[in-house]
Amino acid sequence: MTLRQSLHRLTIETRGKGLTDFTGRVASWVAARGIETGLLTIWCRHTSASLTVQENAAPAVREDIVRFFETLVPEDPHRYAHDDEGPDDMPAHLRTMLTDTQLSVPVAEGQMVLGTWQGFYLFEHRRQPQRREIVLHLLGE
Amino acid sequence: MTLRQSLHRLTIETRGKGLTDFTGRVASWVAARGIETGLLTIWCRHTSASLTVQENAAPAVREDIVRFFETLVPEDPHRYAHDDEGPDDMPAHLRTMLTDTQLSVPVAEGQMVLGTWQGFYLFEHRRQPQRREIVLHLLGE
Amino acid sequence: MTLRQSLHRLTIETRGKGLTDFTGRVASWVAARGIETGLLTIWCRHTSASLTVQENAAPAVREDIVRFFETLVPEDPHRYAHDDEGPDDMPAHLRTMLTDTQLSVPVAEGQMVLGTWQGFYLFEHRRQPQRREIVLHLLGE
Repeated sequence: MTLRQSLHRLTIETRGKGLTDFTGRVASWVAARGIETGLLTIWCRHTSASLTVQENAAPAVREDIVRFFETLVPEDPHRYAHDDEGPDDMPAHLRTMLTDTQLSVPVAEGQMVLGTWQGFYLFEHRRQPQRREIVLHLLGE
Repeated sequence: MTLRQSLHRLTIETRGKGLTDFTGRVASWVAARGIETGLLTIWCRHTSASLTVQENAAPAVREDIVRFFETLVPEDPHRYAHDDEGPDDMPAHLRTMLTDTQLSVPVAEGQMVLGTWQGFYLFEHRRQPQRREIVLHLLGE
Repeated sequence: MTLRQSLHRLTIETRGKGLTDFTGRVASWVAARGIETGLLTIWCRHTSASLTVQENAAPAVREDIVRFFETLVPEDPHRYAHDDEGPDDMPAHLRTMLTDTQLSVPVAEGQMVLGTWQGFYLFEHRRQPQRREIVLHLLGE
């Protein structure tokens, strides 16, 4: 076999702050590529939404995550000079910095080597619903 | 030369919270592949243990890191709804989010381009010893 | 076309704590490689400076980021055992852990798929000016 590449754009509609599981959409796209061994990269094209790998079982985990980040990076206007787009603007940038903009996961035996409890989440940091763009890149054979 | 890929699974036995240096095991595996130029990816298959690149010299650095994360993400049951596996469960997920699940490092002249003081560490976030699985993927020529 | 690789070293002179935009230098190097589709990886060879993707518009964002990290990871000597290189030593390691040492971004139609507002920044965590080394690796066709 020969190494080859594929690119894909995913759009995720968010509904305000919170985590959206998009593991299934990535897994389906990878499966359809027919790659046995390779490397999948996920890129989030925003600075106020981010990626994270988290537990895909208990829903309470996602609620605790949102609450934790509200405390760690407070929406307190007195703390930030930058608020062009409102009080959630600067906290959104900081929460993005503390989590991930990119993830690369190996593919083995035709599927991503995620652990049993691992899922991909888009973490929306703005209050209002947004249309988010994710780029997938797969290289393999 | 032609681009080729290799995959490998590493098992790391942890002894409760703390950092385990596994740079040597990765470097040996990479050296044995005979790759001159390429990209090495490390994936951690867990949501309560993570990866980090840290200073490999002073042991006090690792102790300070563990202590810092105890303060930044406290094991305080009143803060979290999710505690299926005990008070260290939710803090483990959050500490994983704040550090890394994946790292990709270029290979040049047959070895990873780590800086002089850089080492790869597995950061265990659970109190009890665990058996952790890491996947290595190398692509190069 | 055939998949091929390129490596490059960038040196960034920092002027104490703060963020330095180096997106243009990466984009120029990528453009000169003549790669249509691929994956670009950036590696920072230090444990007291890091990488981040941030908004490239408002300068106030960078000031807020620096201020936020001073609060999140205080330069308080009483908190850390390790201070071989001064009070900014251990906070520099922790701030590096909380941000990124590596970023990998897909290349499509000859350029990186960065969002409109995304830029690459080197985040210097030491007080004194430093000479920082970044490695770029590009794989594509």
